[in-house]
Amino acid sequence: MRDLPTFEDVRSAASLLAGVAHRTPVLTSQQLDRITGAHLFFKCENFQRAGAFKFRGAYHAISRLGEGRRVGVATHSSGNHAAALALAASLHGIPAYVVMPENAPAIKKAAVEAYGGRITFCAPTQEARERTLEEVAGRTGARFIHPYDHPHVIAGQGTAALELLEELPDPDIVLAPVGGGGLLSGTALTVRAKIPQSRIFGAEPAGADDARRSFTSGTLHPTYQPNTIADGLLTSLSERTFTLIRHNVDDILTAPDEQIIRALHLVLTRMKIVIEPSAAVPLAVILEHPEKFKGKKVGIILSGGNLDPGIKYT
Amino acid sequence: MRDLPTFEDVRSAASLLAGVAHRTPVLTSQQLDRITGAHLFFKCENFQRAGAFKFRGAYHAISRLGEGRRVGVATHSSGNHAAALALAASLHGIPAYVVMPENAPAIKKAAVEAYGGRITFCAPTQEARERTLEEVAGRTGARFIHPYDHPHVIAGQGTAALELLEELPDPDIVLAPVGGGGLLSGTALTVRAKIPQSRIFGAEPAGADDARRSFTSGTLHPTYQPNTIADGLLTSLSERTFTLIRHNVDDILTAPDEQIIRALHLVLTRMKIVIEPSAAVPLAVILEHPEKFKGKKVGIILSGGNLDPGIKYT
Repeated sequence: MRDLPTFEDVRSAASLLAGVAHRTPVLTSQQLDRITGAHLFFKCENFQRAGAFKFRGAYHAISRLGEGRRVGVATHSSGNHAAALALAASLHGIPAYVVMPENAPAIKKAAVEAYGGRITFCAPTQEARERTLEEVAGRTGARFIHPYDHPHVIAGQGTAALELLEELPDPDIVLAPVGGGGLLSGTALTVRAKIPQSRIFGAEPAGADDARRSFTSGTLHPTYQPNTIADGLLTSLSERTFTLIRHNVDDILTAPDEQIIRALHLVLTRMKIVIEPSAAVPLAVILEHPEKFKGKKVGIILSGGNLDPGIKYT
Repeated sequence: MRDLPTFEDVRSAASLLAGVAHRTPVLTSQQLDRITGAHLFFKCENFQRAGAFKFRGAYHAISRLGEGRRVGVATHSSGNHAAALALAASLHGIPAYVVMPENAPAIKKAAVEAYGGRITFCAPTQEARERTLEEVAGRTGARFIHPYDHPHVIAGQGTAALELLEELPDPDIVLAPVGGGGLLSGTALTVRAKIPQSRIFGAEPAGADDARRSFTSGTLHPTYQPNTIADGLLTSLSERTFTLIRHNVDDILTAPDEQIIRALHLVLTRMKIVIEPSAAVPLAVILEHPEKFKGKKVGIILSGGNLDPGIKYT
């Protein structure tokens, strides 16, 4: 397949992001180690700019557009990628056009607007989103930055794992959540290149387990009626992320929503840091499959912290 | 008054706590600086052992009991002090007896039990608590460790400010929440000794403003029917903490619950760290009185992170 990013692209993304993306801390928790029987190292992308790892890929992708970026960038995500793209565009001094369904939650609208993103509303269907995005891009010339099916986005997401490995140079296992697969494929690319003997697992909600089914069968399965509290992981793999994941990932493990909620509560109440449900999925997987992690050094990408404080997660 | 702690006691507490209490981080937030117009430095005692600064005072007070501690310690707090005392006692290998009203929330019971505390339930009145504590102490010989009216507890609480000043050596203002006054008097003692020119403010909920009334009038006023979301700050000053506060504190500022809730949300959603409502009161005071803080370097003790995840704070 054309345009598969390499580990060299991750390194080059890291140079472009230096001094722009936050170097987020790697935290440990004696209490969670005791509960899981493993040694956990959390790479805290909940503290990243705009509240999630997505800033890395969005900023890197814009940087690599060169002069072509001046007309602006566009996307039809309504989640963390949209807010990250709006912030990254504003740092580059260019416009970001975001297509959102008219029923998107107010909090997501507010996040994009806070970073200066220009929102165009559309009907809440995939077809309307794509058509509206084409219209906006046609009118403005803005370049579409896909939330995950994009080599520079994937390379940017891999820089979180690169930083993690500088503080945890000998993990037995590295875990990242998987939705569209941008974070997981960037993470796997990086860990496989730097620490070939480490095992790499994707962590997926049981209620949206297209990546597990695709990985197991060897054929790309789209998500079918996903149903999970982890609202950042509803999307399906692309050919590109599926290819990278098949090459570099050892397994995809799932956990049900009850375990995701338990993991979310443990992080909120024991580590005292705010994460969103999607970021709790790796810990949920450890709680669900404890025998795979007992006594192991485990690196975890805590993907984001945009928890809606108006929702009761119980 | 006898038994007023000095700054030397804070230094000696710091030696006893080294390697036992966590050295918590001092965090900053560009977003909160922009919102307040001040430069804020948060000493994150929400990451302290047992989730609050209280561990410092409890552990220090037990250490200073010498051999007398073997019979155990006791208290009738049901909040963070009880959990901290139970943990500190277990680290010393001695029993902790905690008297709690029978209607105390399950989550508080669970915290004390998790650290091995031995709970005796009593009727939910102040009189029953004191009588039951006397019975328990009489039966076991355990030494009563008051949550704040105790020189070694106050000196222990002052060590958080001592660490803060090592990272922020030139604050214009230092802020700590005030309930019974243990944290504020220990903080003020420390800041006054190390940085005499710094201003020191207590931050109090408007719905439990006994400290402000006592400070303003020069006479100790007990709390009367306190009503605030900041449930760690319902208690009244003692003669001892009042004396220290009058000597070292410049003013007590208050904020209403709406502002405390706004501050709590800002910390959860912008800083992505979990704090409890009482810990949000200093930021609430800054939001309520912005003109006093504009352009200033402000140190804040974020007192604790034991937020009940079952409650919607809106």
